[in-house]
Amino acid sequence: MFFGSDNQSCASQPILDAIIAANQGFTHGYGDDHYTQQAIDQLSAVFECELDVFFVPTGTAANCLALASLVKPWQTVLCHSSSHIIMDESTAPEFFTGGARIMGIAQHSNKLTAEHIRHYMSLGGDDIPHNSQVGAVSITQANELGQVYSATDIQAISHECKQHGLKLHMDGARFSNAVSHLKCRPAELTWQVGVDVLSLGATKCGALCAEAVIFFNKDDARSMPHLRKRAGHLISKGRLFGSQFSAWLHDNHWLELADHANQHAQKLAQQLKAFADIKIIWPVQANELFITLPKPLADHLNAQGAEFYDWYPAILPVHMALNGNDRYVRLVTSFLTSDAHCNEFVQVIENYLKNN
Amino acid sequence: MFFGSDNQSCASQPILDAIIAANQGFTHGYGDDHYTQQAIDQLSAVFECELDVFFVPTGTAANCLALASLVKPWQTVLCHSSSHIIMDESTAPEFFTGGARIMGIAQHSNKLTAEHIRHYMSLGGDDIPHNSQVGAVSITQANELGQVYSATDIQAISHECKQHGLKLHMDGARFSNAVSHLKCRPAELTWQVGVDVLSLGATKCGALCAEAVIFFNKDDARSMPHLRKRAGHLISKGRLFGSQFSAWLHDNHWLELADHANQHAQKLAQQLKAFADIKIIWPVQANELFITLPKPLADHLNAQGAEFYDWYPAILPVHMALNGNDRYVRLVTSFLTSDAHCNEFVQVIENYLKNN
Amino acid sequence: MFFGSDNQSCASQPILDAIIAANQGFTHGYGDDHYTQQAIDQLSAVFECELDVFFVPTGTAANCLALASLVKPWQTVLCHSSSHIIMDESTAPEFFTGGARIMGIAQHSNKLTAEHIRHYMSLGGDDIPHNSQVGAVSITQANELGQVYSATDIQAISHECKQHGLKLHMDGARFSNAVSHLKCRPAELTWQVGVDVLSLGATKCGALCAEAVIFFNKDDARSMPHLRKRAGHLISKGRLFGSQFSAWLHDNHWLELADHANQHAQKLAQQLKAFADIKIIWPVQANELFITLPKPLADHLNAQGAEFYDWYPAILPVHMALNGNDRYVRLVTSFLTSDAHCNEFVQVIENYLKNN
Amino acid sequence: MFFGSDNQSCASQPILDAIIAANQGFTHGYGDDHYTQQAIDQLSAVFECELDVFFVPTGTAANCLALASLVKPWQTVLCHSSSHIIMDESTAPEFFTGGARIMGIAQHSNKLTAEHIRHYMSLGGDDIPHNSQVGAVSITQANELGQVYSATDIQAISHECKQHGLKLHMDGARFSNAVSHLKCRPAELTWQVGVDVLSLGATKCGALCAEAVIFFNKDDARSMPHLRKRAGHLISKGRLFGSQFSAWLHDNHWLELADHANQHAQKLAQQLKAFADIKIIWPVQANELFITLPKPLADHLNAQGAEFYDWYPAILPVHMALNGNDRYVRLVTSFLTSDAHCNEFVQVIENYLKNN
Repeated sequence: MFFGSDNQSCASQPILDAIIAANQGFTHGYGDDHYTQQAIDQLSAVFECELDVFFVPTGTAANCLALASLVKPWQTVLCHSSSHIIMDESTAPEFFTGGARIMGIAQHSNKLTAEHIRHYMSLGGDDIPHNSQVGAVSITQANELGQVYSATDIQAISHECKQHGLKLHMDGARFSNAVSHLKCRPAELTWQVGVDVLSLGATKCGALCAEAVIFFNKDDARSMPHLRKRAGHLISKGRLFGSQFSAWLHDNHWLELADHANQHAQKLAQQLKAFADIKIIWPVQANELFITLPKPLADHLNAQGAEFYDWYPAILPVHMALNGNDRYVRLVTSFLTSDAHCNEFVQVIENYLKNN
Repeated sequence: MFFGSDNQSCASQPILDAIIAANQGFTHGYGDDHYTQQAIDQLSAVFECELDVFFVPTGTAANCLALASLVKPWQTVLCHSSSHIIMDESTAPEFFTGGARIMGIAQHSNKLTAEHIRHYMSLGGDDIPHNSQVGAVSITQANELGQVYSATDIQAISHECKQHGLKLHMDGARFSNAVSHLKCRPAELTWQVGVDVLSLGATKCGALCAEAVIFFNKDDARSMPHLRKRAGHLISKGRLFGSQFSAWLHDNHWLELADHANQHAQKLAQQLKAFADIKIIWPVQANELFITLPKPLADHLNAQGAEFYDWYPAILPVHMALNGNDRYVRLVTSFLTSDAHCNEFVQVIENYLKNN
Repeated sequence: MFFGSDNQSCASQPILDAIIAANQGFTHGYGDDHYTQQAIDQLSAVFECELDVFFVPTGTAANCLALASLVKPWQTVLCHSSSHIIMDESTAPEFFTGGARIMGIAQHSNKLTAEHIRHYMSLGGDDIPHNSQVGAVSITQANELGQVYSATDIQAISHECKQHGLKLHMDGARFSNAVSHLKCRPAELTWQVGVDVLSLGATKCGALCAEAVIFFNKDDARSMPHLRKRAGHLISKGRLFGSQFSAWLHDNHWLELADHANQHAQKLAQQLKAFADIKIIWPVQANELFITLPKPLADHLNAQGAEFYDWYPAILPVHMALNGNDRYVRLVTSFLTSDAHCNEFVQVIENYLKNN
Repeated sequence: MFFGSDNQSCASQPILDAIIAANQGFTHGYGDDHYTQQAIDQLSAVFECELDVFFVPTGTAANCLALASLVKPWQTVLCHSSSHIIMDESTAPEFFTGGARIMGIAQHSNKLTAEHIRHYMSLGGDDIPHNSQVGAVSITQANELGQVYSATDIQAISHECKQHGLKLHMDGARFSNAVSHLKCRPAELTWQVGVDVLSLGATKCGALCAEAVIFFNKDDARSMPHLRKRAGHLISKGRLFGSQFSAWLHDNHWLELADHANQHAQKLAQQLKAFADIKIIWPVQANELFITLPKPLADHLNAQGAEFYDWYPAILPVHMALNGNDRYVRLVTSFLTSDAHCNEFVQVIENYLKNN
């Protein structure tokens, strides 16, 4: 019962098969191979535009290289206070950007909005060079509370960004889950609504180790070859990334994987709603559930082998302070989550409640 | 009518005289001169302890070198959301620390408290190495809202810091104003209540260009010679700093200067209380007043030559949103502020109100 | 005829098989899985000691994280002027170390020696904090000129390092090739002769994407979890690295791969010695050959599909300035290089010479 | 007998007088005062062109901010291997530039030449992003061996720079000494011969604490307000710098000071030539002498109160290895050096030689 993270899963079979197929003979190194080129072509087709793509091994690298491309070291990046870049990547954003500031806002909301940005920008702080100026906004799709930004949400955000000359970055570690939820075309959620750079994650969504930084505006990408190299993220056997992305995108495999994960999150949510003691905190949209449940029950689940993480209490809705008897935990499903895993989880709960 | 900042004043005459006196013949460079040594000895006497001192030209350098001595690049510095290090030093803290995070809290309070720190530390985020861990707390004395931390306040904060293994830095750009207000011994406000490093500012308080980073714990200072040099803050003719600090501390000159500034802030506050349209937002303790006043009146004051800055509306008390007809401004007094300056300021207001 | 680099080869079959075998079901993320643990145990057995291991995706990351663990930002790293860290990793060493200096010495020698270090250290520059002090020495085994350091060489170097309090790093991107050449036990080439940290590369030597930073002294490793994370080099599905290293080390597979590569370098060298116009510049010890050959011949080889890189003319022996009619190129063999590849290469040369 | 450095002198009387005169009443802070503006206007007149000026407290700050304006963090700065930026500023250049590489060349020459640059650029290393590309060249005028670059020298260097798209920085900590030696107009030694940015030092040449970064091309200066602020080098009471520069430049005071220093270097050189045991290593052009002399004599001079520094033996001409019986030392004169100082120094030598 692994609900700790979608990265606890292995790679899907088609992706593994692609790695195997690519593992033959010699190719040029450092991404100058046809697997890489093919993956780029597929990305271009999927996003219906020309784009600059840089493959990297981790989501942290993808996000932080993207930000380093967009802001100067004396600028500030605005993001939701629960975002991965501010909560879960150590001080990598500061490191990669040469010391830009990362500023979390929208503290008790479950999504960043244009209004949050407008409010922050209205608070003054335009005394240059004393005040650090905002250079970019970063949003996560689907975000760290399992919430999905609609095309309209993003459009409003990017509109506000443009008023202030800010670049817009999207952390798409679970972009496929968002696309699956919205049934949109990828273009409709990115460059067509003003996203400048997308960190597109495959690792959490069925790959073994494959992330891409996608620039919809080539000018923004000019420093990237240098930034990636000097951060040690230009791997020599580039076919590892090319083959995975190629298989992931082929024939909508990426969306099938995301559909599977999302559906199992919905299914689990349905099952958990039956229990009065368990509260689902945020709407279940992608592949993450945030619930509160009695501590003894949560501990029992852990003891029975269920894996999940306690989540940051700072990121509860403001009206819902955590009472001392509950745990606030996150459950994540993946392409590998089966009905059996969900049922077993629910069964443990039922058994526990019966006996307590 | 210069109420823009205490750094709009020249140096006091005794300090200038000391510069003149030190400007004779040859000495060793880089602080290896007797003016510097004498200043260090005086600091030691004033603080009643052994200490390591590093003189630098600016408050930003003093603060950021202090922080760089205390935290690792992957750690976080907690501070009040209105603090100078987060509002007015660009991204210097990130630069000097090699990319540590600067996190502003206590947003709508006028001082940071132990409770604010306790709350922040309770919010989780102890998953190493994913979550950046707090390494230090920085407070400003007197702070950017003109508030003074009592010895008891500081003791409570440092007690909380020790619970979590955090270092405590004090930005003392206006330390003399705080000492003057509290009538404490400097030791009682620093090392005796758990302050590890003090940025002691003389520039705003009567000097021309002289700041000191004071370490009460020599272990914390080990990197400082290197940090200061590679940041370009080791000046060659060290007598410039030594002579100023020496004169500043001599015979309580520093406290006389601060007393003068504080008293004129009190005086101005008394005078302004007479006007119904002017609200004093925070208690006047040191040498800064924060007021709201009708826009046309504020504009008229500026037109008549009064200098002051609009302050960040983010740093109003939460119940006091700025209405569109007012301006929220900061008035700062210094050793050079005279009764005549205050009276002229008040006269302009009276004349304006009479005619409008 | 791929002689461009050993990273132009795919992974060996046993290593691919291990990736396939590990790609099943769920595990914990971020290296907390049994594949990773098993690889660490095997490394410990191979090196006959306890060690701290950090797996990363690239050699640049491995080297630069190692250096960042060993030196302060105000220190200097000494290395051979042809070393990978100074020639081929952009300014990654400066980036990871927070701005330490990388200083190349021993310019016209084919190996760094204790004498080079002694000479550099004798040149003064000990005025602290003005002069940057050397903090570490980095050597490459086998090095960028295909040369192998004997245990005695390394012992002499580390002895000199200890005289000056310097740490010793070894870039082991081709460590297996060196071990294969010397027929030593790995311990004899590392911790037993004073190496503090080893970047152990598997990627060039038969893996797909797998490097390790190995600390023989746990104290040196204390910052590594943070350094790796904030550089984006902590991958989530750690089994990718664990499985590869495990298969690589299993049953001496790593040394068989290296033997194969080295033997084909020797074979090719033997064949090339027959041609008067081709000069082998440095002794062939590991899996690299450095030759000069007439430009038209080199161009013809390229035209016939032979891949190799022109090498930096700065790194010719001082007596051997490159004449305008020759090209100075590097040929690299790998576990995948076959007799047929070598023979085809030689055949192209013979045919060309016959007809010209 | 202070021949240790020109920064061992106090400020000249006219410069001190200017500080005194400026120390009156209120002005705007952070360089927005008329003393600063007047100094900028004078610089513009002296250099006969429009320029962007940024005052800072130290030469290290001036040099490193200039370099940070010119190069990207993944680029390399070429300089003479004896230059101040590589020998005497710790790793400040790496720190300010965000980790660019500092590469010393021309090791056994006493000046950098166009030929040195051409040679370095010919050595390959243009494989992007693997090889760090040169972005700028930095020369020192007068340089760290007391040598002066003629207008023709600089023209040749800048011509070579332009061939490769490199920016040209001049460290002018002793620019006035060079101008005095060459009897050129400042423009002829800077922008008219291709210098992009000049660090103009007044501190060593008669001021108390005043350096300027001068941009002849406004585009290069765009990041400077931010770079200076976040490095803590924007002082609040800007009149300190403005008044000094104003007095320094007024009525050719700066050149009179330099003439005095240079003439006393010449005088001392003439006197020392009389002693067979003392060798003057480099031509005396500005205000520095580099000599070798018997150890016992040098020790005796020190014992008699003569101040001077042993110089880096690495920076001897290649044919002149230091024998074990000599010391290689630097003597620096300043505006404060008197005939009496020189005579006393020579007298000590004569007395010693008579008695030994």
